[in-house]
Amino acid sequence: MHYSDYLELDKILDAQHPESDRQGQPAHDEMLFIVIHQAYELWFHQLLFETESVIGILGQPALNDNSPELQTIVHRLSRCATILKVLVHQIDIMETMTPMDFLDFRDKLRPASGFQSWQFKLLEARLGLKYEHRFGKQYYLSQLRQPEIERIKAGENQPSLLQLLNSWLERMPFFDAPASSNFWSDYRLRYQQSLTDVEKGNLEYFDTVLEGPIPDLPDHSADASNIGRSTERPLAGDRSLSPAACRAALFIMLYRGYPLLQLPFQVLHQLLEIDEQLSTWRYRHMSMVHRMIGTRIGTGGSTGKDYLGSALERHHLFREIAALTSFLIERKRLPQLDPEMERRLGFVAG
Amino acid sequence: MHYSDYLELDKILDAQHPESDRQGQPAHDEMLFIVIHQAYELWFHQLLFETESVIGILGQPALNDNSPELQTIVHRLSRCATILKVLVHQIDIMETMTPMDFLDFRDKLRPASGFQSWQFKLLEARLGLKYEHRFGKQYYLSQLRQPEIERIKAGENQPSLLQLLNSWLERMPFFDAPASSNFWSDYRLRYQQSLTDVEKGNLEYFDTVLEGPIPDLPDHSADASNIGRSTERPLAGDRSLSPAACRAALFIMLYRGYPLLQLPFQVLHQLLEIDEQLSTWRYRHMSMVHRMIGTRIGTGGSTGKDYLGSALERHHLFREIAALTSFLIERKRLPQLDPEMERRLGFVAG
Amino acid sequence: MHYSDYLELDKILDAQHPESDRQGQPAHDEMLFIVIHQAYELWFHQLLFETESVIGILGQPALNDNSPELQTIVHRLSRCATILKVLVHQIDIMETMTPMDFLDFRDKLRPASGFQSWQFKLLEARLGLKYEHRFGKQYYLSQLRQPEIERIKAGENQPSLLQLLNSWLERMPFFDAPASSNFWSDYRLRYQQSLTDVEKGNLEYFDTVLEGPIPDLPDHSADASNIGRSTERPLAGDRSLSPAACRAALFIMLYRGYPLLQLPFQVLHQLLEIDEQLSTWRYRHMSMVHRMIGTRIGTGGSTGKDYLGSALERHHLFREIAALTSFLIERKRLPQLDPEMERRLGFVAG
Amino acid sequence: MHYSDYLELDKILDAQHPESDRQGQPAHDEMLFIVIHQAYELWFHQLLFETESVIGILGQPALNDNSPELQTIVHRLSRCATILKVLVHQIDIMETMTPMDFLDFRDKLRPASGFQSWQFKLLEARLGLKYEHRFGKQYYLSQLRQPEIERIKAGENQPSLLQLLNSWLERMPFFDAPASSNFWSDYRLRYQQSLTDVEKGNLEYFDTVLEGPIPDLPDHSADASNIGRSTERPLAGDRSLSPAACRAALFIMLYRGYPLLQLPFQVLHQLLEIDEQLSTWRYRHMSMVHRMIGTRIGTGGSTGKDYLGSALERHHLFREIAALTSFLIERKRLPQLDPEMERRLGFVAG
Repeated sequence: MHYSDYLELDKILDAQHPESDRQGQPAHDEMLFIVIHQAYELWFHQLLFETESVIGILGQPALNDNSPELQTIVHRLSRCATILKVLVHQIDIMETMTPMDFLDFRDKLRPASGFQSWQFKLLEARLGLKYEHRFGKQYYLSQLRQPEIERIKAGENQPSLLQLLNSWLERMPFFDAPASSNFWSDYRLRYQQSLTDVEKGNLEYFDTVLEGPIPDLPDHSADASNIGRSTERPLAGDRSLSPAACRAALFIMLYRGYPLLQLPFQVLHQLLEIDEQLSTWRYRHMSMVHRMIGTRIGTGGSTGKDYLGSALERHHLFREIAALTSFLIERKRLPQLDPEMERRLGFVAG
Repeated sequence: MHYSDYLELDKILDAQHPESDRQGQPAHDEMLFIVIHQAYELWFHQLLFETESVIGILGQPALNDNSPELQTIVHRLSRCATILKVLVHQIDIMETMTPMDFLDFRDKLRPASGFQSWQFKLLEARLGLKYEHRFGKQYYLSQLRQPEIERIKAGENQPSLLQLLNSWLERMPFFDAPASSNFWSDYRLRYQQSLTDVEKGNLEYFDTVLEGPIPDLPDHSADASNIGRSTERPLAGDRSLSPAACRAALFIMLYRGYPLLQLPFQVLHQLLEIDEQLSTWRYRHMSMVHRMIGTRIGTGGSTGKDYLGSALERHHLFREIAALTSFLIERKRLPQLDPEMERRLGFVAG
Repeated sequence: MHYSDYLELDKILDAQHPESDRQGQPAHDEMLFIVIHQAYELWFHQLLFETESVIGILGQPALNDNSPELQTIVHRLSRCATILKVLVHQIDIMETMTPMDFLDFRDKLRPASGFQSWQFKLLEARLGLKYEHRFGKQYYLSQLRQPEIERIKAGENQPSLLQLLNSWLERMPFFDAPASSNFWSDYRLRYQQSLTDVEKGNLEYFDTVLEGPIPDLPDHSADASNIGRSTERPLAGDRSLSPAACRAALFIMLYRGYPLLQLPFQVLHQLLEIDEQLSTWRYRHMSMVHRMIGTRIGTGGSTGKDYLGSALERHHLFREIAALTSFLIERKRLPQLDPEMERRLGFVAG
Repeated sequence: MHYSDYLELDKILDAQHPESDRQGQPAHDEMLFIVIHQAYELWFHQLLFETESVIGILGQPALNDNSPELQTIVHRLSRCATILKVLVHQIDIMETMTPMDFLDFRDKLRPASGFQSWQFKLLEARLGLKYEHRFGKQYYLSQLRQPEIERIKAGENQPSLLQLLNSWLERMPFFDAPASSNFWSDYRLRYQQSLTDVEKGNLEYFDTVLEGPIPDLPDHSADASNIGRSTERPLAGDRSLSPAACRAALFIMLYRGYPLLQLPFQVLHQLLEIDEQLSTWRYRHMSMVHRMIGTRIGTGGSTGKDYLGSALERHHLFREIAALTSFLIERKRLPQLDPEMERRLGFVAG
């Protein structure tokens, strides 16, 4: 066993052949361009690997709370967030390439484009992005190769992390006792009391999200006049988490102090971390592309910045979890759980 | 001289009095909330100090290229970018506060709000944000105190970094020779040739930006359907850099290899860095606020996220510099400068 | 309630009076020097606040596993690690000051010195650094002021985080059953089998650490010929964790998959994170001082780099926890716990 | 041209075959272990590429100050520092692997070891590390393969960046006029006056470094009792920069305000940045290895931590540049340059 063989460095280090060299017009910075994209693809590979492993665990018919599996999920999601932070930082390296240096070889790459990273698209799909919510569907079908499209399609057709999260949350057995129905009417009242006058409208939103069925809300995505607004309310057709799942998630956030809820809370927290890092990556990526090519057309034939800006808006995968924050109330106003519930949320040795 | 006296630690360390303590309902995380905002204000103070020093140098009637002043400007702008990177990172600390922990004291802060940071508003003004372009003008007038408003108004009424940049670029003497007029008609032709079919529209944009007068472009800011588009073209009323200044800046980008242009290029580069870090800070700040309060109303009476989202769009201070990237052409197609110009761009000892 | 009052900005922003201004020889970079040290002191204040709160919880006679207190400890330690990461990053800002720029005001600061930060010394003490292990004891007594020394002394005389950790670990009730004595003889055998030939010596080390009494090992700290070695073995007089506490900590690392051990594992993990970030901060701080003044004498009268280098070596507070890593064995070779133990490590609802 | 072909993703993404899978005992974290090392090797490849390009430029018989070549050197060195910062950050990802998770596959890797990264050793050699100064020479010869050793040997036998830096500094023509001899005797006097009583010894050091010949200083590297001291004085046999080169470098630091010296100053600055990032990487790498395996023997047969600790001490490549900081004096006490010299350090158009 030798380091070079183990890491298959003969492949890894023999995969950089700048197009500008091939064409006899060497452009120094093309090597960086190749290497950084390869580094991104290596990490996308790892992110996919971790995501699939989490999906594998979450997809089991019954997650045993006493097994280490939930710890494993949290650990691996947290690793994904850590990787994404490095990927954000990596943009600093790309930005050492100036627009003039990029121009030296940019035309030689057409029509290749970062849009063609099937791994990234598959990652989005496995985390939970549905085809119908994807911005730039037409590109996806026209620019990727058939085997790549099939791989992503296959990924879309299997249960995603988000779907399995929904099922897992729905299975949470906190409320199987009859008493639990009282809990939510009690909570709703307390929530209503916590709203200031200008916030009264939130109650209807509360009912929609936590009780369903979902009224036919207008779709704001088309005329969203700023970044903030369009992601605030999960729209009708976009909804990925059922009212029952949302109730479980909100309960976890409210009562995370109980031992049994600590890891579920961490699962939700890490998913939000991943979403935030993905968004930050998209945002900085978009800014970088803008600094690099301005309003020129990207090598793939579209304005990269427009695509990235729209994806930034629409590909927030776990926004329905984030939105539950709107329904929290102060700890001191929380309903007291009944003793049997408290017991069940604790340790044997507690 | 003693460390504690020198740093006036009696003031610095006696300025944390949580409101939740005062009201007899201690909330542990309020201390963090106070300290992190104080740390931000310390750094805003430093950013203002550096910005004013740069303005002081740039505002001199004649910057001598042989003095170290341009180096000083680049150095201090670069320091500002470094500080801003730490400020972005500092959001990680704020995010260790969960929404439930924030709720424990949030109501006690009303109507105080981060919006009331006059130092940050002054910093924006001194960098170049005009009152009329500011999002949330009404808040600014209604929420800040009179002396604070006056301080910002005074800042708005003095030449900003952006205005002085414009004058400095206009003064650049590259084109005072008659031959220089040929340069731009030559360059325009080469630029035109570099455009692909779908990019042809860029030529009109080129003429607008580099030759003026500025046609009355429609204002897209209201219906901008995504983040990317609205910032791409400096709109008529928004224009801060004159055609002459834009030509000088573009020339600097194109011929930065000549010694005399190296520091001017760094000035432009560092301003873009500052803009990008400010934007990233706003973006992560906005995401953080959204995770913290969802759709609830901020302590200052507005939805923090909406404000931050709109400011993110509209407060890009140096976007006109970034936009010049659209007008670059490949290095090998650049017009050759005449020998006299080349000589003037070089060192005595070269 | 107004932002400026709430944050007491009148104090925070009126505490910067450069000595070079006072003496009529303004040195631009002194403002940065003041502001960054004030920012550090603000964060030290917060680190102390979090540390004391953790000590308060850990010092309770009985930590109830079913209460959220252990979660709170982990959360706050993790926050400390996050703060320390930003403090490491902040050194980037200091490094924008060049040695020549520092020279412009350095002499004016004598004999003030960063060594005089009583908050940092108190933080070290509260985390667990004993006076007798401190490098530079003489400075501490001679350079700080009497009230500052007394504050640190008082801190040293109260139970530190490390001492309370020791008690908490000793209290862990995993082994109160008679069967548990077998566990360790069994484990010792498995550990012995896992050692390669060149590692055989580790067994004696295992016995020392986990079974005690502690033989009178020679103190290597004086002639340590490299960084690595001197910290590897907790020396006799240095020992802060008893054999019983070490056994509990090792057990937690080995069986962290059980629900009851998950938070204790996180406690240990976060303490190692804090130690690593503190070390990285010291290391980068030392490098920065070296770049800034070379072999010149610091303003406080000693070579800052020597002090920092020695502290780097000797102030690793939780190295006894790190050292337990040497005694791990592969998961698949772990002794199977008996069913009653397994039950007690689980949830009621598991 | 397609993205996947251009990046040769068939190679990059088909190079991960965990040994634990091959042996039918899958260990989840081995994939991370492979991917992160591959990412490191990709970046080492890029660092080598940039380093060689800088060497190519610096090795030209005459660098023309009016050409953009010095800018290119600074730009690429700065890129190397940016890459190294990301490599430091990447250790965070590795640290998401716990010691227990590593144990699951560690034994399967023997005797492969990170020590066998020939690219990293070649990088050290090309930057300037001589074989005779290398810690762990025996490993290098015994553990690497013959073709790898030959590649490194070939790298050692060509002029390194440090050697070319020395020649370039020696060539600097500031002092070819007779008057320049006076400059240094004048400067020496001013330096002497700047020393405090306890610093008087620095004058001898000044003479050694800047005037030579080099007295036979004792080699402290063996008994260095702390990190700081051993690197302070370039030892006799270790010296890489001649007195003439050191004088030029010191002059550049002192008079960097003149246009002609600005880029040379940046060259020196970026080399120090690279050294600091390399050191920080080694330091965090060492800490990480210690947390991972404690005092156990690494897969390569040695204690990784000892090797890394010693390399940390001895592989500081540009410490002779850093050491010059000791010889700076205050700006206001600098000798005034004569007008002809000033003219030659300026722009034609100045």
